[in-house]
Amino acid sequence: MANIAIGIHGGCGTLAPHLLSEVDWAETRQHLADSLHSAWKILSRGGRAVEAVEAAVVVMEDSPHFNAGHGAALTEHSEHELDASIMDGETLGAGAICAVRTIRNPIKAARAVMEKSDLLLIAGAPADEFAQRVGLDIVPNSYFTTPRRVEALASLKAKSARQEIAMASEAERHGTVGAVALDAKGNLAAGTSTGGFNNKPGGRVGDSPIIGAGTYAANGICAVSCTGMGEIFIRRVAAYDVSARMRYAGKGLREAADAVIAAVGSHKIGAGLISVDAGGKVYAPFNTLGMARGWVETDGRVYVATHQEVHAMGVA
Amino acid sequence: MANIAIGIHGGCGTLAPHLLSEVDWAETRQHLADSLHSAWKILSRGGRAVEAVEAAVVVMEDSPHFNAGHGAALTEHSEHELDASIMDGETLGAGAICAVRTIRNPIKAARAVMEKSDLLLIAGAPADEFAQRVGLDIVPNSYFTTPRRVEALASLKAKSARQEIAMASEAERHGTVGAVALDAKGNLAAGTSTGGFNNKPGGRVGDSPIIGAGTYAANGICAVSCTGMGEIFIRRVAAYDVSARMRYAGKGLREAADAVIAAVGSHKIGAGLISVDAGGKVYAPFNTLGMARGWVETDGRVYVATHQEVHAMGVA
Repeated sequence: MANIAIGIHGGCGTLAPHLLSEVDWAETRQHLADSLHSAWKILSRGGRAVEAVEAAVVVMEDSPHFNAGHGAALTEHSEHELDASIMDGETLGAGAICAVRTIRNPIKAARAVMEKSDLLLIAGAPADEFAQRVGLDIVPNSYFTTPRRVEALASLKAKSARQEIAMASEAERHGTVGAVALDAKGNLAAGTSTGGFNNKPGGRVGDSPIIGAGTYAANGICAVSCTGMGEIFIRRVAAYDVSARMRYAGKGLREAADAVIAAVGSHKIGAGLISVDAGGKVYAPFNTLGMARGWVETDGRVYVATHQEVHAMGVA
Repeated sequence: MANIAIGIHGGCGTLAPHLLSEVDWAETRQHLADSLHSAWKILSRGGRAVEAVEAAVVVMEDSPHFNAGHGAALTEHSEHELDASIMDGETLGAGAICAVRTIRNPIKAARAVMEKSDLLLIAGAPADEFAQRVGLDIVPNSYFTTPRRVEALASLKAKSARQEIAMASEAERHGTVGAVALDAKGNLAAGTSTGGFNNKPGGRVGDSPIIGAGTYAANGICAVSCTGMGEIFIRRVAAYDVSARMRYAGKGLREAADAVIAAVGSHKIGAGLISVDAGGKVYAPFNTLGMARGWVETDGRVYVATHQEVHAMGVA
């Protein structure tokens, strides 16, 4: 049987272990495992990589434990503006939306842009309208709000008012979910979805909806989804750079991905990514305290982690 | 004296010669020359590449002959939504705005995002508000409208209603302006600005505001600004791909740029770019009937072209 593979991340802005309860960490790990199961089911039945990526991301968008969909960070205006993108490594087709407010699963809208429009990236209200037109679930902006994000924004604004801190801390700032997959036909795909960062200015767009920066996939090479301060990932064209180092400089996935994390990290920011090569090897480097992540090994064993320790979660 | 260089493009969607009057073509060439003069003045006095790029683009944004700023294409709603980006090859800093409606010179807003904010890309109304806050010229959306664009939209909508044509022709569709520069200190920069395409859906964002796709610059390698159907340039990460082929595969500018135009062109679209390498060699490949373009040679001689024929325009 041909190799299939799935790898996911839930952001490199993971909090220190003591800042959440063990119940919360256990639920986070369970939702990572659920995301992997959902994608593995598709791949093991011969489904396409792009479908598996969408399915994996949807589970994390629906979970309150990740900064995407329900549970997304709040902007400075106490609202949610969401970004997402997806890329099909077989066709190099891609779709993305940014600064949307009412689409329950932004990754589905990104895929719909790819498959049901002539466009690649739609910004703002027209993207919300497009999603509604193609029949996706539309929700009020408040659907995305969770108590944890309300607290985080209030806390940051209070600190800011006391001038204790100008910017959110690394952990409060970042958060993104993403997935990469290899299907049995050898197709690669990648997808990324985010709420941005706590207290972000309205209209700010990071790397998550930017093909080449936050998301990239090309059959025969690799698929990549990034997490970290998007502004730097855009300047470094990070996701595509992994692929370019493999394709043009003949590097393996690990060496290429490490070089990109080093380049992005040279700007003194937290950075991480999930990646898979054409052989199905998943690699998830990060330079922070932790990065929520998971993958399924070829024998179907499921592994998830939020910090250094890796947890076995049974067989998919 | 160290090499300095400036190269510009005014879009690869140039009309066939008989579709405009000789007066219009002469004025188009003169505005290209004005753009080059404006940038050359800065570079020859020791100014920075990023300033020269901005100055060159501003002249084309202010001209009705190019699809950027005044003269921008109209959306399906008979409005203008503008995109721009700029990148400084010295710092790899970059700034961009998309789907803005009231900023007279979008390239100035892109530069302000780079230099006066912590963000890289701002979408929609918040970008207009940012530009106003930093003191840029704000204009009504109607400022951008020219009779030629009103006619083009009406003609396309009429054809569309008669089902004669589903999409705009290549020439009607594309149009973007861009500039690349090398300053006396060896710094490279690139910038791109556009109104998108005739009859574009609201919220559509192309490659012009996307670092890596439409715009890229890195000292010691190259600076690139692209023109053509943005959706394909994003998927191909076109501007960065020129740089990646040079950096990782050891290609020269010409070979790298030709390979990227071939890759993008393989999707059966018109494509062009302006590029300059670290030695100041300007290269402007395109696969269409024509591409408005210009450059200044090291002796200060100014050349512009809209189709195959190159016109000498004196000394800068």
